[in-house]
Amino acid sequence: MSRFFHEDFSGLEPYTPGEQPKNPGLIKLNTNESPFPPSPKVVAAITETEVRKLNLYPDPESMELISAASACFGLPERNIIAGNGSDELLAFSFMAFQKGGNVFFPDISYGFYEVYANVYGANPVKIPLKENLAINIEEYFESKGLVVIANPNAQTGTALKRIEIEDLLRANRESLILVDEAYVDFGGESSVELVSEYDNLLVIQTLSKSRNLAGGRVGLAFAEEEIIKDLSKMKYSFNPYNLNRLSILAAAAALNDKEYFENCMKKIIDTREEFVGKMKNLGFLVIPSMANFVLIRHDKVSGEDFYNALRERNILVRHFRNTRIADYVRITIGKKEDMDALAAAAKEIIT
Amino acid sequence: MSRFFHEDFSGLEPYTPGEQPKNPGLIKLNTNESPFPPSPKVVAAITETEVRKLNLYPDPESMELISAASACFGLPERNIIAGNGSDELLAFSFMAFQKGGNVFFPDISYGFYEVYANVYGANPVKIPLKENLAINIEEYFESKGLVVIANPNAQTGTALKRIEIEDLLRANRESLILVDEAYVDFGGESSVELVSEYDNLLVIQTLSKSRNLAGGRVGLAFAEEEIIKDLSKMKYSFNPYNLNRLSILAAAAALNDKEYFENCMKKIIDTREEFVGKMKNLGFLVIPSMANFVLIRHDKVSGEDFYNALRERNILVRHFRNTRIADYVRITIGKKEDMDALAAAAKEIIT
Repeated sequence: MSRFFHEDFSGLEPYTPGEQPKNPGLIKLNTNESPFPPSPKVVAAITETEVRKLNLYPDPESMELISAASACFGLPERNIIAGNGSDELLAFSFMAFQKGGNVFFPDISYGFYEVYANVYGANPVKIPLKENLAINIEEYFESKGLVVIANPNAQTGTALKRIEIEDLLRANRESLILVDEAYVDFGGESSVELVSEYDNLLVIQTLSKSRNLAGGRVGLAFAEEEIIKDLSKMKYSFNPYNLNRLSILAAAAALNDKEYFENCMKKIIDTREEFVGKMKNLGFLVIPSMANFVLIRHDKVSGEDFYNALRERNILVRHFRNTRIADYVRITIGKKEDMDALAAAAKEIIT
Repeated sequence: MSRFFHEDFSGLEPYTPGEQPKNPGLIKLNTNESPFPPSPKVVAAITETEVRKLNLYPDPESMELISAASACFGLPERNIIAGNGSDELLAFSFMAFQKGGNVFFPDISYGFYEVYANVYGANPVKIPLKENLAINIEEYFESKGLVVIANPNAQTGTALKRIEIEDLLRANRESLILVDEAYVDFGGESSVELVSEYDNLLVIQTLSKSRNLAGGRVGLAFAEEEIIKDLSKMKYSFNPYNLNRLSILAAAAALNDKEYFENCMKKIIDTREEFVGKMKNLGFLVIPSMANFVLIRHDKVSGEDFYNALRERNILVRHFRNTRIADYVRITIGKKEDMDALAAAAKEIIT
């Protein structure tokens, strides 16, 4: 720490992203990336002509992307804003909307929520998941402040129905309900369509997972116009040109290719269901997942040992130490052959 | 404003970036972009193979870029961090280092300094430029807090010598001195080499101007290791994957092409000097510039009228209303033919 660092941040625990190993021989199932390349339309959009325009600033409003998102999600452009990944939009939201000071979220969820609460001076209130690691939405009905629900939930993969989100929106009208839909396309129900009905709803999505663009860093937020204007104010007070030219093009092209997207989703869901079946047959407890990952555990092996045993076999998954889910590992759904390799390794490890 | 927006930000005035008109017929000299495309090495780096890897997260440490920066600037990698444009690094710096509360900067400079001070709860202290619009560095010798000096200065283009920065670093050892070198490559003296000697120096550069990459959004910060670690902590508490894959590649390639860079710098400096000569011959007062823009005024026409008259002739420059430089317009140094067109238009306007 330098002698100039602000005392407020001296004890800050930053977020730890999943390991990004340089070893190319590894089967990498630890950061919920898509196993498929981006749409051919994305590849076609990044032309040499476009690269040669990199001397010019991007459109600070990313209108080409916002337009594509408007068509894709059936919402007016005024209800949408883009970020440098959904992380940037989450950060803007925590900064802008933690009025009252309390931010409520599940005790097991995306680790960044607690970091953002701490960075922006809010009070994080963690509400425990149920015994089966699902969210009990009614526990948020009286939570006054900013309520943050990942749906499907990060780390666990469990999903709430849209009607449950709607119950929360109705029951807790004084609070802003932020629904983080990073994983919604893998079988969940999106709440984006509720944006036109509820002025206390903010939905955030990312193109990192289901649109195969983790390397492009693009997120989207959907909400009624005044909330989008507030987020825009945060953006213009931080980094007006928050999206680079090529990511704007890539993201717009990805949203425009509905067929490729649906095809990728089908493959990942099919692979997940087949993998879950295999793991259950091996005696694993599998938390029901609507995401591109599954959280699993086995009575015969600790989460940490299972993680290490897989790593020895060149398979990288994610293990969360010192948490309620320390007995589990989280496994990204990759290509079918990678999941088969993992299932074979798992069989070896537990027998 | 939504009913959820934090009261701290309700009166916030965000930064206003230069206009990005959609009209392609305009001669655009308002946002200090480079008139030249990025290096051919940048174009070569963005291959289809790389675009097809956009489903994978970028390296959160952007090591390929940091390595290239290390070689280019002759500093160890531990003294360098990359941002999503220099704006992001400036924001992190204001947030991390405004200990004590006061942030000192010139009354005419990059407009974002005041915005960042306000967003992050610091007290902006504006120190007036001298009558000739130059910075008197001695006025910052007693400024306790965060001192922010753009060198060359934004809007005016005037430059301080490295020895003047060093005088400040020595005289004001208790304060962190942030030197924003967005425009340094157009004839200024960089303080990057002082980083190894002074633990109170933080230098920020951008690849937007002299490296022809405004559309890529890449900035670099240089400082002693502990300051870089503090900035890294801010980054990992905000957006660990702050740079996308393609911008990392583009920026590394741009830094590796020294010859192209020097060639572009020479052309812009030559064009600037020729343009300045012409404008002086027309009776314009030209503030001495070491940047890729010049600030000029003429007794016969107000800044606003001159701006409008140029705009009518399809030439877009920048005018700063309600400021000490309202009599002036700021003109980006573009291609020679664009500057000739502007000089011809200026002659028409003042005669």
